[in-house]
Amino acid sequence: MSGVGRVYLVGAGPGDPDLLTLRAARLLTQADVIVYDRLVSDEIMALAPPGTPRVFVGKETGCHPVTQDRINEILRELGTSHRHVLRLKGGDPFVFGRGGEEAEYLRAHGVTVEVVPGITSAAACAAAAGVPLTHRGLARSVRFITGHARTGEALDLDWAGLADADTTLVVYMGLATLPQTSAALMAHGLSPATPVLAVENGTTPRERRLITTLSRAAAEVAEAAFQAPTLLVIGRVAALAQDAALPMIHAEAACRLAVAAHG
Amino acid sequence: MSGVGRVYLVGAGPGDPDLLTLRAARLLTQADVIVYDRLVSDEIMALAPPGTPRVFVGKETGCHPVTQDRINEILRELGTSHRHVLRLKGGDPFVFGRGGEEAEYLRAHGVTVEVVPGITSAAACAAAAGVPLTHRGLARSVRFITGHARTGEALDLDWAGLADADTTLVVYMGLATLPQTSAALMAHGLSPATPVLAVENGTTPRERRLITTLSRAAAEVAEAAFQAPTLLVIGRVAALAQDAALPMIHAEAACRLAVAAHG
Repeated sequence: MSGVGRVYLVGAGPGDPDLLTLRAARLLTQADVIVYDRLVSDEIMALAPPGTPRVFVGKETGCHPVTQDRINEILRELGTSHRHVLRLKGGDPFVFGRGGEEAEYLRAHGVTVEVVPGITSAAACAAAAGVPLTHRGLARSVRFITGHARTGEALDLDWAGLADADTTLVVYMGLATLPQTSAALMAHGLSPATPVLAVENGTTPRERRLITTLSRAAAEVAEAAFQAPTLLVIGRVAALAQDAALPMIHAEAACRLAVAAHG
Repeated sequence: MSGVGRVYLVGAGPGDPDLLTLRAARLLTQADVIVYDRLVSDEIMALAPPGTPRVFVGKETGCHPVTQDRINEILRELGTSHRHVLRLKGGDPFVFGRGGEEAEYLRAHGVTVEVVPGITSAAACAAAAGVPLTHRGLARSVRFITGHARTGEALDLDWAGLADADTTLVVYMGLATLPQTSAALMAHGLSPATPVLAVENGTTPRERRLITTLSRAAAEVAEAAFQAPTLLVIGRVAALAQDAALPMIHAEAACRLAVAAHG
């Protein structure tokens, strides 16, 4: 059977099964085996036929039961013994998903790879909160960074370039390093009053949002005990976040700023 | 009927109907009326029931048959006379889609708005070409800008900040301004050998890709007569673009660079 298989590297989107692509939903029902991780929701896995074998390769913060090297090997082994291997990843495989590494490894070992994009967390959380990532007069571009740092290491980013009031900055995996991120952005000139939207468990029934400002974000997010996965949206557009039927904590300063910036 | 309606501001993704979300596909079959523009493909519109009324509000480059103000009014009128209005936009409504403006206008006029994210062109073209937008050792972040400028005006962007070899730069609507963009990036220090991927009509049967370098991009894209919509991916990751069953023009320099950068 060697060489006959194909690994589909598929974005599962942010968690809400309704935000799967038609392609991903069909692959879920057709796969011979599914390899998935922690960011793929139970609701999505429930769409797969009960008889389909599943391999969980999830990583918890600070606890890596399956290394990336081992995931690569698992995918290669399955890719040579199964026709349709579905590698399902939260969000989009090519936005902080390490999908590029998996694709590169598989191709180097002769396994055919096909990549299917998914709704990345930034787009999903922005839509749910009513926050445009770009918006005339508020944000001319949008930038995605990761706040993930190795344990004990500081983030080494181009803070001067990131402290740009005309760009919406979206931080993936940025909860633990939020104190450093907000301090560095302010030290490089971004206003302490810059609106910040934090979204925990975006698009799932457990979603929580908090609207605050750059100077207060670290303290308020900690006080509200946000856990990973939490996405941060930093920039003027964050002040446009809509009220919704969700637990939401409104920092009054951010609301006033929204009016000032947009009135 | 005033006030009973709801406008769904929905991303249709890049063109391939398979990349619609389940939500968007369902709304297509349930809408009372559909308002769409030029970037929504015929293949997607074919999924709507034949009897559903459609309003085309497309804009052609240099020719705006329906202004944004008029689109806003149309959506407001429909939102007060129909229960389910589907406003379908190419890509994601909140990434250079002016969805924020439509949502703001509708909310200001008391119309309920719900936003459904879509696969943005950057994610779709990256997946199809096998180009990770972020990749260990090649790109630590990704940034989306628009190359659209008013007729006769030059792009006014923070070129120093954009000329960052560690960030993947994705340019939407950047075909006409590519000569200016590439010259400005090089003038601000980005290497002329930086790989560039241009994708015309991404994910549709008419897709064409071209891999080149920053110094040659403007000339080669012009020579290949690329038309809008064309997406540009500028950065080291572009050199990872895979061969595929597509018309593709490979600049040898980019291939050699990929090996050098990644070997």
